[in-house]
Amino acid sequence: VTIGIVGGTGDIGEGMALRLSPVFEVIVGSREIEKARFTCDSGRETLKKRGQMCSLTGVSNQQAIDDADIVILAIPFKHLAGTLETLEGFEEKIVISPVNPMEKRDFFTFVPPPEGSAALLIKKMLPPSARICTAFNTIAANRWKSLDEELSYSVPVCGDDNEAKQEVMGIINRISKLHAFDAGPLGGSSMVESLTPLLLNIARYNKMKDVGIQFR
Amino acid sequence: VTIGIVGGTGDIGEGMALRLSPVFEVIVGSREIEKARFTCDSGRETLKKRGQMCSLTGVSNQQAIDDADIVILAIPFKHLAGTLETLEGFEEKIVISPVNPMEKRDFFTFVPPPEGSAALLIKKMLPPSARICTAFNTIAANRWKSLDEELSYSVPVCGDDNEAKQEVMGIINRISKLHAFDAGPLGGSSMVESLTPLLLNIARYNKMKDVGIQFR
Repeated sequence: VTIGIVGGTGDIGEGMALRLSPVFEVIVGSREIEKARFTCDSGRETLKKRGQMCSLTGVSNQQAIDDADIVILAIPFKHLAGTLETLEGFEEKIVISPVNPMEKRDFFTFVPPPEGSAALLIKKMLPPSARICTAFNTIAANRWKSLDEELSYSVPVCGDDNEAKQEVMGIINRISKLHAFDAGPLGGSSMVESLTPLLLNIARYNKMKDVGIQFR
Repeated sequence: VTIGIVGGTGDIGEGMALRLSPVFEVIVGSREIEKARFTCDSGRETLKKRGQMCSLTGVSNQQAIDDADIVILAIPFKHLAGTLETLEGFEEKIVISPVNPMEKRDFFTFVPPPEGSAALLIKKMLPPSARICTAFNTIAANRWKSLDEELSYSVPVCGDDNEAKQEVMGIINRISKLHAFDAGPLGGSSMVESLTPLLLNIARYNKMKDVGIQFR
């Protein structure tokens, strides 16, 4: 399986690439190819020091879509629509949205678009054959990057294409100690996306860092 | 501390009474006093068989407010406004809302009132001196009632009155292995309330029962 990360040089994308590339072929996309290459070079170095093999290639965002079977949209919500407008080739691809529409007001607040969630906005913008899944929403960038720590978290996954969802859940279950849970159709993504501002509030008001969740 | 449970003969309320009454003085309120008394008699029996002391009194919903320092509104969302309209005496009381506005459509969906959350609807309906906290939203009725099981869950708590919130968190931390987390102001309650339909979906789509959460 080849996984392309759009926005792969951002905080979350970079950490995802580090965790995914020892297991899967990973293509890191960026608006600036040079930046993608640099992220891959330094990622390869990091993993080599740890004695881990990896497959990491730095390319443009468009190339990361074209060359991948599965595309992760590691883009902050505020840049989501603008970025998707410049990209194409999503037909038949599995597209993973870890995007959380939220704002920092007095506290972190879930502020969905009129469609109801980032996932449903993506569905509106992409071709109907794109197989969209919501996943990876609640894992903090620092946790992705802290390679010495196991990721002992639950990952809720939403999607309308059951085969695509099963494939995404299989990938999740191969990363560290992540545990995928089917959270139902894509229409339920708002309840997953609103977890992230809640976890940021929990961290803030209890003086914790990078809080995650487990279902049990 | 005396805790009054409005709707204390419902599924959730009854389980709460069983867990709370060995530790606190608990007053079980119901629209029908006879029902409240019956629930308390059978609860006392259950706890006695387990060798646990308890303090349980069955009264009307209004009495449960009047005689308590802390009031838990264990009412399904659809009956919330109608029930509150018939009750009074909330001035200065700590009022806990475990209420989740949700509907079962194709899947469980968070459907908040125009105010944004059950907690903010309650705030609008009660006198300004009521000290409202959101808590206990995500613990399933069956778990409350399964007295042989520890409740190893995290409980997010929202509220604008910090002293009240600290008192509620202290109560939570004395029940089984519950662990209270400050989830910020009352305005953030929607993100807590929407956890429950998410957990119901997780249970349904993964063939699990009574799923809860832990923050970590």
